[in-house]
Amino acid sequence: MATTGAGAPAITAPSSSTFTASSPFSLKASRTSHRQSARRVSVNVRCVSSPPADTSYKTKVPRNANMAKLQAGYLFPEIARRRAAHLLKHPDAKIISLGIGDTTEPIPDVITNAMAERAHALSTIDGYSGYGAEQGEKKLRSAIAATYYADLGIEDADIFVSDGAKCDISRLQVLFGSKATIAVQDPSYPAYVDSSVIMGQTGLYQQDVQKYGNIEYMRCTPENGFFPDLSTVARTDIIFFCSPNNPTGAAASRDQLTKLVKFAKDNGSIIVYDSAYAMYISDDSPKSIFEIPGAKEVAIETASFSKYAGFTGVRLGWTVVPKELLFSDGHPVAKDFNRIVCTSFNGASNIAQAGGLACLSPEGLKAMHDVVGFYKENTKIIVDTFTSLGFNVYGAKNAPYVWVHFPGRNSWDVFAEILEKANVVTTPGSGFGPGGEGFVRVSAFGHRDNIIEAARRLKQLYK
Amino acid sequence: MATTGAGAPAITAPSSSTFTASSPFSLKASRTSHRQSARRVSVNVRCVSSPPADTSYKTKVPRNANMAKLQAGYLFPEIARRRAAHLLKHPDAKIISLGIGDTTEPIPDVITNAMAERAHALSTIDGYSGYGAEQGEKKLRSAIAATYYADLGIEDADIFVSDGAKCDISRLQVLFGSKATIAVQDPSYPAYVDSSVIMGQTGLYQQDVQKYGNIEYMRCTPENGFFPDLSTVARTDIIFFCSPNNPTGAAASRDQLTKLVKFAKDNGSIIVYDSAYAMYISDDSPKSIFEIPGAKEVAIETASFSKYAGFTGVRLGWTVVPKELLFSDGHPVAKDFNRIVCTSFNGASNIAQAGGLACLSPEGLKAMHDVVGFYKENTKIIVDTFTSLGFNVYGAKNAPYVWVHFPGRNSWDVFAEILEKANVVTTPGSGFGPGGEGFVRVSAFGHRDNIIEAARRLKQLYK
Repeated sequence: MATTGAGAPAITAPSSSTFTASSPFSLKASRTSHRQSARRVSVNVRCVSSPPADTSYKTKVPRNANMAKLQAGYLFPEIARRRAAHLLKHPDAKIISLGIGDTTEPIPDVITNAMAERAHALSTIDGYSGYGAEQGEKKLRSAIAATYYADLGIEDADIFVSDGAKCDISRLQVLFGSKATIAVQDPSYPAYVDSSVIMGQTGLYQQDVQKYGNIEYMRCTPENGFFPDLSTVARTDIIFFCSPNNPTGAAASRDQLTKLVKFAKDNGSIIVYDSAYAMYISDDSPKSIFEIPGAKEVAIETASFSKYAGFTGVRLGWTVVPKELLFSDGHPVAKDFNRIVCTSFNGASNIAQAGGLACLSPEGLKAMHDVVGFYKENTKIIVDTFTSLGFNVYGAKNAPYVWVHFPGRNSWDVFAEILEKANVVTTPGSGFGPGGEGFVRVSAFGHRDNIIEAARRLKQLYK
Repeated sequence: MATTGAGAPAITAPSSSTFTASSPFSLKASRTSHRQSARRVSVNVRCVSSPPADTSYKTKVPRNANMAKLQAGYLFPEIARRRAAHLLKHPDAKIISLGIGDTTEPIPDVITNAMAERAHALSTIDGYSGYGAEQGEKKLRSAIAATYYADLGIEDADIFVSDGAKCDISRLQVLFGSKATIAVQDPSYPAYVDSSVIMGQTGLYQQDVQKYGNIEYMRCTPENGFFPDLSTVARTDIIFFCSPNNPTGAAASRDQLTKLVKFAKDNGSIIVYDSAYAMYISDDSPKSIFEIPGAKEVAIETASFSKYAGFTGVRLGWTVVPKELLFSDGHPVAKDFNRIVCTSFNGASNIAQAGGLACLSPEGLKAMHDVVGFYKENTKIIVDTFTSLGFNVYGAKNAPYVWVHFPGRNSWDVFAEILEKANVVTTPGSGFGPGGEGFVRVSAFGHRDNIIEAARRLKQLYK
């Protein structure tokens, strides 16, 4: 229920029974039972009416080889699957999810009222609207530019409203195409790497190093303050950079981002800067890459209302593609991104956009600030818990994530231990890349009583 | 205003001034003024502080060559641009848009009430929900399966809820990958071809035949009853087939679809069947490809609430990928599509999904039926108008589109004539492929008084 915050992905993990369960429509399942029957009592074979295995009709369409490169399921559905398996074994377990980073607190009603009002208006002649601009409503684009980019030289037309950062990351990958090369922070949010694999930008997965070929992994560790040693990083076309980082919670300083922009400029690379957690920044780290002089010529920024206003299910975000950003032939990147957006997207839901506009009103901004403040208090409880137990803990200060070190241990083992012994779902660090091995990410999204209860159980487990 | 139904794309056409206008941030614009100044009075050059042209910073990231293949803007933004240009010349023109197929009638309040209720619930502890399943809410998937696919062997798990058919078409293209070959009806909805070009499945655009290389165009004309002569169609991996067709309005009969399924099966192809207008069918043409025996082994179906419930701006649709559909290596297509959806999408807006569920209640179904009936009455008015003027008119019976023949004339010329002389926006047939040359598509989406007024003006123009 509301205490788990896990949404419904449990039913949908790629490896779930949905696709393998026996059903009247599954020839594959029928084949299995055919064989099993045959092994047991051969006389039963005639009762099996399904055709034998090799007569299953297959199209002649080859599977996309890039899809075959992907490892296991996408991280979060996989966690949901393991959580569901645990529940099956322990139906009475009172699981607390500090796993997938899902928001739990209600959306402030200044925002939901605006969405309800828009919904009602759609049933009136005057209030009805059909297709909106693919790039988002003009008013919302203006409000985003004015709220987050005032004095940074970003204009309304540079803003593309989306149904969320994850969706725009894939659209950006389609824009760059299969020949682009990418770099990612290691560890980082898995959508960058997975979308790159799907687009065919990578080689095969190399089991020994747990990396895909042709991706530049920029190691971020406590030793380098979670900022990569750029002198060892090879040039790529695209650099995905998330700050505050998911999962480490580290926010890059002004000095670090200045180095990053210089690195991109020297190499002629494009930075895709994911600022989905910018409002969680407490110190003077930049909240936008465009605070760095010259960034408009080398960077795209993607952002989201999800973690500020609880819009994980409502779906609303934006991407900034400055008109100054040019491909090597001088063609503006924004012009091609506009074409992608017009061809493969039809705008975010108009009701969600009404919510976004309310988020950016004075009352909405105050309400989002309060939501962020609440989760930051949660973060402090989690940090205090692990610190009191003697763990080294990172992130947290500028992000809703606590990055806890379990030196020498396997992340999935720690994940399983905490799930089985404390009924708390976390996220194994290695799910974010090999650089996450030995860590787990603990999310601060949760009701206060759940955070306190999780803290109590963790103290019990690791006392 | 509400009478135009054109949304806001006018500000956003790829060739709009957004990307070329002079601004403090556009080096390119500064360069132009530099040169103009230099031509006029050389002494003024020193006043231009912008750097000269060749110092504009360019990244070293090559533009995706597939993007460069695309011709002009996506059709509908291009129409919006021409409409805006007309308005600029004639600011008092009372334009009626029967162009982009945008719905105009309010959403029935049984549906908007459900959306408003969900919005309000999101501000309560009990009613809040965060991330939903990427594939859609279980209840909605069940309702879609029960409403549209009862007795067709399609189960909840085969349904993927989306933010609209256009978006899912692009996700399907990413699934198939750059090596897939496609066939399209000619004429057809431009998103199939454009998304194919973007994915790199095609050759260059061949100006002489107005076709992209490596796409199989299946000609659909009055002569063949708008169903292609399959004996002349080359095998492709994917066959995009829209019925009732956009733009011709033709719905394929059961016999024709049986031939299509057999053709796909013989060739080992996958049909992507776009049924976005199925509820407009008045005769006994199938409303789903899955009414055809064996289709589950060769077809995907994509559908939408847009044209039934006025959800063009709310954004909600679905795609059916039957578990029986297998790639040549036996891998289920649904399993890979699930991975695409999990990686590049985060589910449709939960508020829109609440609306979808209300659409499928008994009251919602009745309300959608009434909306469809209203637009079908509009269709009749348009058909009667053109018929009375002696035009040959197609489609209309099973679709909200009237396909009007202007033999020997250029579609864009007819489009311009109707816009300039009657202030009515239509869609030039050639925008849907070379097979649409000599036709315009007239959309029946409009307020009744606008339809009647448009009919009056057209009678005046072509009397």
